Order: sequence, then C-alpha cells, then structure tokens
Amino acid sequence: MEGSSIKGVEKIIVAKSAGFCFGVKRAIKMAFETCRDENSEEIYTLGQIIHNPQVVEQLEERGVTLVDSVEDISCGTLIIRSHGLTRDEKDMLRGKDIRVVDATCPFVTKAQEYATYLAKEGYTVIILGDRDHPEVKSIRSFVEDVGDVITDLEEIRNAKKRKKAGIVAQTTQTYENLIKWVSVSLEVFQEVRVFNTICSATTVRQRETVEIAKNVDAMIIIGGFNSANTKRLAELASKWNDRVYHIERAEELRDDMMAGILVIGVSAGASTPDWAISELIEHIKKGWGVDRILVVRGL
Amino acid sequence: MEGSSIKGVEKIIVAKSAGFCFGVKRAIKMAFETCRDENSEEIYTLGQIIHNPQVVEQLEERGVTLVDSVEDISCGTLIIRSHGLTRDEKDMLRGKDIRVVDATCPFVTKAQEYATYLAKEGYTVIILGDRDHPEVKSIRSFVEDVGDVITDLEEIRNAKKRKKAGIVAQTTQTYENLIKWVSVSLEVFQEVRVFNTICSATTVRQRETVEIAKNVDAMIIIGGFNSANTKRLAELASKWNDRVYHIERAEELRDDMMAGILVIGVSAGASTPDWAISELIEHIKKGWGVDRILVVRGL
Repeated sequence: MEGSSIKGVEKIIVAKSAGFCFGVKRAIKMAFETCRDENSEEIYTLGQIIHNPQVVEQLEERGVTLVDSVEDISCGTLIIRSHGLTRDEKDMLRGKDIRVVDATCPFVTKAQEYATYLAKEGYTVIILGDRDHPEVKSIRSFVEDVGDVITDLEEIRNAKKRKKAGIVAQTTQTYENLIKWVSVSLEVFQEVRVFNTICSATTVRQRETVEIAKNVDAMIIIGGFNSANTKRLAELASKWNDRVYHIERAEELRDDMMAGILVIGVSAGASTPDWAISELIEHIKKGWGVDRILVVRGL
Repeated sequence: MEGSSIKGVEKIIVAKSAGFCFGVKRAIKMAFETCRDENSEEIYTLGQIIHNPQVVEQLEERGVTLVDSVEDISCGTLIIRSHGLTRDEKDMLRGKDIRVVDATCPFVTKAQEYATYLAKEGYTVIILGDRDHPEVKSIRSFVEDVGDVITDLEEIRNAKKRKKAGIVAQTTQTYENLIKWVSVSLEVFQEVRVFNTICSATTVRQRETVEIAKNVDAMIIIGGFNSANTKRLAELASKWNDRVYHIERAEELRDDMMAGILVIGVSAGASTPDWAISELIEHIKKGWGVDRILVVRGL
C-alpha cells in the first residue's frame, strides 16, 4: 500500500440501529444476573448465549461453562440461549435435576409456535433461514415430526404440487429473501400462508445499513463471524458498496482497508455489544482519523 | 407512410394458448344451448356474457337480450355471465320467476368462496384486480358486509397495522402483480394468507405471449377493448416489444402498423373466438404477406 493514498478519515457514520436488539439484551441480562445470583458453581449455556466471542469470554470469566450438548450436564443451572432449544433438548432436560433460565428470544418462540400451528393444520412448513443455524434447527425440531418441512428454495421448486404451504422466517432474515421464497412458493402451492416472523429491529437495521453503505467510501460491519444477522448486513451492504469489511474486533482493520477513505460507515449485528462499536470508533480515530474527525449517529 | 418500407410479412407466430379458456368455452356453450333449447322468447344476459363484441352480436342475432340490471327483467331465462353475479343481484333474482342458467366460471366461484372464507375468519380481504371489473365487483360483494375489503395497492400501504390479511386475485391477473401486492402486504400485516386464484390458463397465455413478443418485429393482440385479460396481454407484451397493437377486429390493421415487419406475433385474450384469430391471419396474409408466408403455432 502506498502511504500517499491515506488522506485520513474525516467522518464516521454509525448506524443508529447498530448493536444489541431486544432479545439479545434480554438474554445477556438474564445470563449476567444468573452469574450474580446463583451460589452454584455450575452454570452452563448450551452453545454460545449470543453469537459474539467477547460476550462469551466475559461470561466464561464469571464461571459460565459452554457445553455442546444437554448430555454434558447432570445438575446446576442451564441458561438457554436466545436462539432457543430443539425439542429433543427440551425432552432430555425434563428428566434432569437442572434449573433452567430460558433466555430464548420471544420472537423466536413466536416463530416456533407459528410453525407448529401450521404443521398441525396440515400445511407444508417452509422455514426461510440458514439451515444449520440453531434458531432454524430449533424451529424445525418442533414441526418435523408433525408434517413436511422445507428449508431450501430448491426444495420448494421441486415440491410436489400440494394444496397449501405455510412460511415462517428466521427472525434475522431479509425481507427480500422472504418475498423471493413466497413468490416461488406461489408457483407451486395454491395457498401460501405467511407469518412474517422477521423481527422489526432486524428490518430497521438492514435498511439503515444499506442507506449508509450507499453514502460512504467504505463500510465496516462489526460482529461475530458466526452471527447470521451480522453476515447478512455485510452481504446487503456489499450490494451497494465495493468496500465492505466484516470484522470481529477493531484490531482487524488494516492500512490497506482504510486507504483513501474520507467517510466511513459503521454498522453492527444484533449480537455486537455497544463497547465493541465504541472501541472500533476510537480505533479508527487514532489510526486513520484526521485531527477534527466527525462522528455522527445515523445519516 | 412510404410504400418502400413494406417488404411483406414472412412469418406469423400464433400463440398456442391464444383464445377461449375453459370458463369462456363453458359459458358460450351454455348460452348457445339455451338459445337452442328454450322455447321462450325471453332470454337475457346480465352484461356481456364474455367481453367480446362479436360473440355478443351472435347471441343477439339468436334473440338474446342484453340487460344492465336484474330490475330490467321480470320473467324468462337469465344466463349469468362468466364473471359472476354480485350478492345483491343474487338476492334480487330470488324473488323473481326467472330461470337461471349459471355460466359463472368455476374459478371465479372459487375466488368468491376463498374471499368469503377469509372475511369470516377475520382477515382483511385484499382483492387484486380491476376495481370496476364485474368479476372483482362480484367477489367484493360477497365480503364487504362481513369485514374490511381492500382493492387498491395504496389502500394496503395506508391500512392500519393489523394482524392478518388474506389475498385473492381476479382470475386473469398477472403473477407479477400478485407478488407485488403480497410483498406490500407483508410490510403492513404480520400474517398474509394468499389464495392464488389466478387461473393457470391465464398464466400460460401471458408467459407464451411475452416469449413471442420478445422474438418478433411486432405483436398483434386481438380481443375486446373491455376485456381485462386481453388488455393485460397487450401491456405485458409492450414491456418487451415496442410495436404491440391491441385490436378488436382484423380490419383495424393499417399499413403504417405493418410497415417493415417480417415476423409478426399474434395472441388473443380468453374471450377471443378462434374464428377471430383465423380471420386476422387471413387478413395479414392477404394484405401484407409475402407469397409463401409461414404460419406457425407457438415459437
């Protein structure tokens, strides 16, 4: 990289909607309260409480153990993460002497309920989302014994012409994907019943991120690499800006990424803490900012 | 127009799906059978049996009287056209000594039934279609007393945020419009339940018309100017071809329309009789065709 191409960042535009959503805030609050209140040494989360490595580390420092399976625990307290449990996990827990702190996002619970209702009513249930994401696995687990489940666009196209399909979406999906899935479904099924389970915070965050991406030289999306909604922000922003960088920590920024940038946008997934965003802003200021850099919230 | 620009039409591509659909064939058959079988001089249709002036004329020649209102009749036989009756008209008929021949298209009846079901289940009913078309008026009449009805895209956008909406479509609507309405509805309503009541013959005809329009120098759409589905064919074709002419009768073709055309496409709405299409082909052949003109069905 040539030094001459760095003029210095003059302005940072931070999305107002960046960072923790309602469900994530609630889950973290419940987790930290559990650490404080419980005398027991045995506090577990099944998988990461939210998809953010720093928050997981902080909980580990407070003695929370991350386990991969309900089979790994026999007693103590289990905090259920925001993405929810599968039906098998719920069944397994029932037989154990474990205190459960349920931090499942209420919007995820709603999606599970709609999917279950649809399956019982005889609909082919279509779940729009990342097939391997814990939220989708959880929703799916409640319906796959009841009726047909589809989690793939190709599967919809190849589905036998049936009478009716019901669609739910992972809460962090894009509206554009939902419309795409609905439109393909309408070519195959006579009746398509859609429960728009995308949470409104997700939609607002995606739209604001796109608007900022259109108006800046480069865009930084900060958040866990395993966070589906953070990855989706980066994907959406990339449609409007050639220089979109998805990073987990501020230190990942490099000179070549920052070359020639005057105005930079910042957005963050629902599982990115506010302090991570603040750290990033300070990092940009110190490393590449001009003297009187302007930091604004929203366009 | 300069004569030099006419080279002569070498090829006519006629859409395989052009012309009468199942519901129209059925209505016409019922109407002509009624003329043959009834001794009574008093045979009526409420509005045009199908939106085609020639067919209406042929029925008039056989003594069928076109009336605008049920109030205009007190006895005799009434043929209900393919677009159906409104609820008021049905109620009015009940008190009269009139024999009814119901030629309502079964797909329109289905749309009425779905709309009624949705209204009874507490859905805001959205009817995609031409607000003033008899089919839409008929569907609407069955639900407007039961609950909220929307027949306009702007109305969806301005609807109070409500829980659930149900959508049905005029049987001759486009799939693209349906997707548009569904996508706007999903921004406003948590649940959107869609009954795809567009009849499959309509979809096939629209797609074939577009494919032909993409591959010809000009496109003729023949059918009643008051036929919604014929007009829609012309609209769709116009997106792909600058020279699309919607005519009612072959004689409307003029030299300036035909100037410079080597390959011409022909499609026709669901209410256009086969003989009208044949007449058009003969007219093109005689007026502007080269000696060995090729006429093919489908691309």
